[in-house]
Amino acid sequence: MTETQGSNPSRRALIGWGGAGLALGAAVAGGAVAVAQSGEDADPVADGMGGAVEFHGAHQAGIATPVQDRLHFAAFDVKTDDREAFVQLLKDWTEAARRMTAGKPVGEGAYGGLAEAPPDDTGEALGLKPSRLTLTIGFGPSLFDRFGLKDQRPPALVDLPKFPGDNLERSRTGGDLCVQACADDPQVAVHAIRNLARIGFGKVAVRWSQLGFGKTSSTTPGAQTPRNLFGFKDGTRNIAGTETDRLDEHVWVGAGDGPAWMTGGSYLVARRIRMNIETWDRTSLQEQEDVFGRDKREGAPVGKAKEHDEPFLKAMKPDAHVRLAHPDSNDGITILRRGYSFTDGTDGLGRLDAGLFFLAYQRDVRKGFIPLQRKLAAHDALNEYIQHVGSAVFAVPPGVRDSGDWWGRTLFSKEA
Amino acid sequence: MTETQGSNPSRRALIGWGGAGLALGAAVAGGAVAVAQSGEDADPVADGMGGAVEFHGAHQAGIATPVQDRLHFAAFDVKTDDREAFVQLLKDWTEAARRMTAGKPVGEGAYGGLAEAPPDDTGEALGLKPSRLTLTIGFGPSLFDRFGLKDQRPPALVDLPKFPGDNLERSRTGGDLCVQACADDPQVAVHAIRNLARIGFGKVAVRWSQLGFGKTSSTTPGAQTPRNLFGFKDGTRNIAGTETDRLDEHVWVGAGDGPAWMTGGSYLVARRIRMNIETWDRTSLQEQEDVFGRDKREGAPVGKAKEHDEPFLKAMKPDAHVRLAHPDSNDGITILRRGYSFTDGTDGLGRLDAGLFFLAYQRDVRKGFIPLQRKLAAHDALNEYIQHVGSAVFAVPPGVRDSGDWWGRTLFSKEA
Ligand code: HEM
Ligand code: HEM
Repeated sequence: MTETQGSNPSRRALIGWGGAGLALGAAVAGGAVAVAQSGEDADPVADGMGGAVEFHGAHQAGIATPVQDRLHFAAFDVKTDDREAFVQLLKDWTEAARRMTAGKPVGEGAYGGLAEAPPDDTGEALGLKPSRLTLTIGFGPSLFDRFGLKDQRPPALVDLPKFPGDNLERSRTGGDLCVQACADDPQVAVHAIRNLARIGFGKVAVRWSQLGFGKTSSTTPGAQTPRNLFGFKDGTRNIAGTETDRLDEHVWVGAGDGPAWMTGGSYLVARRIRMNIETWDRTSLQEQEDVFGRDKREGAPVGKAKEHDEPFLKAMKPDAHVRLAHPDSNDGITILRRGYSFTDGTDGLGRLDAGLFFLAYQRDVRKGFIPLQRKLAAHDALNEYIQHVGSAVFAVPPGVRDSGDWWGRTLFSKEA
Repeated sequence: MTETQGSNPSRRALIGWGGAGLALGAAVAGGAVAVAQSGEDADPVADGMGGAVEFHGAHQAGIATPVQDRLHFAAFDVKTDDREAFVQLLKDWTEAARRMTAGKPVGEGAYGGLAEAPPDDTGEALGLKPSRLTLTIGFGPSLFDRFGLKDQRPPALVDLPKFPGDNLERSRTGGDLCVQACADDPQVAVHAIRNLARIGFGKVAVRWSQLGFGKTSSTTPGAQTPRNLFGFKDGTRNIAGTETDRLDEHVWVGAGDGPAWMTGGSYLVARRIRMNIETWDRTSLQEQEDVFGRDKREGAPVGKAKEHDEPFLKAMKPDAHVRLAHPDSNDGITILRRGYSFTDGTDGLGRLDAGLFFLAYQRDVRKGFIPLQRKLAAHDALNEYIQHVGSAVFAVPPGVRDSGDWWGRTLFSKEA
């Protein structure tokens, strides 16, 4: 999740379109050493949002990476029984992901090809910066019913139970695969998913997808905490991307945790949670603050003055969201939240189809989301204002180590 | 459409939350004189995207204003027969719009009120910058069936005819009113529409709404032209916000054009156009370029080298989009395009529900969109790859002149 440093060519410059006079930015420092790439002028300004995030590493980027502004998440169904073909797709996807996260178009010559052939890249991100794009792949439980993978299914990758209040729509639930695309520019995130879908044509098909426009969690210490659609700061108490000890303890799969192929990976739970905006907006401030156990203005825990003051759980109502979700109420259970707000127009009743696309990473779903959500689903005061309408769970394999490696190699390759 | 200059307080600072240490930006120069507002440090960097656009003026902002990055567009149905109540709503909306576009929350004391009452503002934009938010209101044909307005309906506000190929969904068509919210931060645009909907509760209800994530047209001379979801530069030939003569000729309603209450206003056509991404992506580069009559890489007209070279229409295929849409093929017809790309997940067949939310402003729909679209609907090569699925037309009244004025006053007030 370190960010490349140094001059940061746009897609345009990278495919050699001349682009003289284009102002190109230098990536923000992310802990990586400087990589000299070209002679273009650095422009630190353009950069907070423009830089590239390193694709390779022990873990996939997009989990502990500082949360980008936008999300395009897609769940795919597999449409082939040919293991070779599927493995080839994973390799092709990896290569495309490697290029796109670096700000390059898919394919060596986006327009070097024949006029009679469709361009390798769909083109709408040409000229845009890498925008901190990360692409993170996950494997759903149903994938392990295919390709002779049954024995490789991690015990931690359980099917989620039905929780009280769940009102799941089939068309927003499940998936053999997922790709989470996060970027500071939505066009870059949408472009990435679209090009992966296109490369996968005939082998995989998009089952459902979700666009998120406002991050609701921060994993960057010191950054201003974003607000969710209920107007509350969200992500105050989260694991920071810099807390390597907590990441090792709660997020990354350890060597002894399950099948060896998952070491360095994580488990992702995605929940599409509708928020009843109209009802909430007619609720008193007092009730709103009681529901969370924090005040709306500062985000401070009940009885405290500042957002980052240590919560005193007993001062909160017994059914307050924070009191119920806090690790102290759950034998220390801690998850990494990485959700986004969404607004998908209006439903048939003229109500905003809006809410939280909840994304949580953890080392073991059985010791993370499941017990937490069991408790919340049964007791949370928030339940009056929300409804879970979509759900999926994925095993997120470890990172792609280098330019010869590919997504899923540890699962699919005999010589892993 | 000038932008306020000088120190540019965030919503947070404006409602007096102390917010010490918050870095606040100064608005970019937009031709306005400097307005000293506070002692906070100016931060020109944060500003390209953060500033406030002046709400008051002869014309509504959001038309000739340099196009912001994001859109939330809502069409409303009126739910009351009480003219007084409706006029009061327009006044309340104006006041809220005035505050929100300045980066302030709705209501004087967002949290100064009683804990027993719902907060005046829903809160999710607190701490965010004004983000160049503009709010633009329009009145649909059906509004004139109400409130004794029949005689005031402008002849130019015709119901759109059915064009060949139209496949309009009722749930995305029409509306008594619309509000176009544009901002560089989607959370700010969504917040604005939501709060207007909330203020309108019981009097109006959202009929449909559309989120746009990528502007597809530029109205800023010299700026890099954005690309649409077919990967082509879009907006190359458009009216620039600085071309006052062309705006007067093609966009603003003149004094002799129709009912006096519309002078200084404009007419808006909104079309939700699905783009068949999957088909397009399998089409050869040659065919793609033939369809538009421009090349994909540079955006240059056929036979020319550069994007802004003068098109030679006869070099293009007879059914090329640009050839058919160019003013020279249409007795000079010129519209101001202000559309946005959208991606609303996937449809039941696993295809991206993506396309162009086409927005065009013009002085008279009968001499702008209608003849143009008649021709395009009949002949455009692009039709193989697109489908119009939503449609609406609105009379956009002139600007709110000052702090005592309100949206629609020229239509509703006896002393107009
Ligand atoms: C729409 C649904 C939800 C909303 C609006 C919401 C909102 C919030 C807010 C405002 C906070 C306090 C600030 C913070 O520490 O981040 C919070 C904390 C938290 N939430 Fe949620 N949340 C939702 C769903 C969930 C779900 C489904 C889970 C897990 C199953 C969850 C787990 C947590 C945890 C673990 C904390 C931190 C508690 C602490 O350590 O103090 N939330 N949430
Ligand atoms: C999904 C649908 C559409 C797409 C993808 C599209 C795309 C484009 C592109 C790439 C250009 C060339 C660059 C430029 O000058 O902006 C263009 C030009 C233009 N389009 Fe469209 N367009 C669409 C629909 C429409 C519609 C519905 C109209 C009006 C009824 C329209 C009117 C125009 C006009 C007036 C021009 C400028 C022609 C010139 O002066 O050279 N377009 N469009």
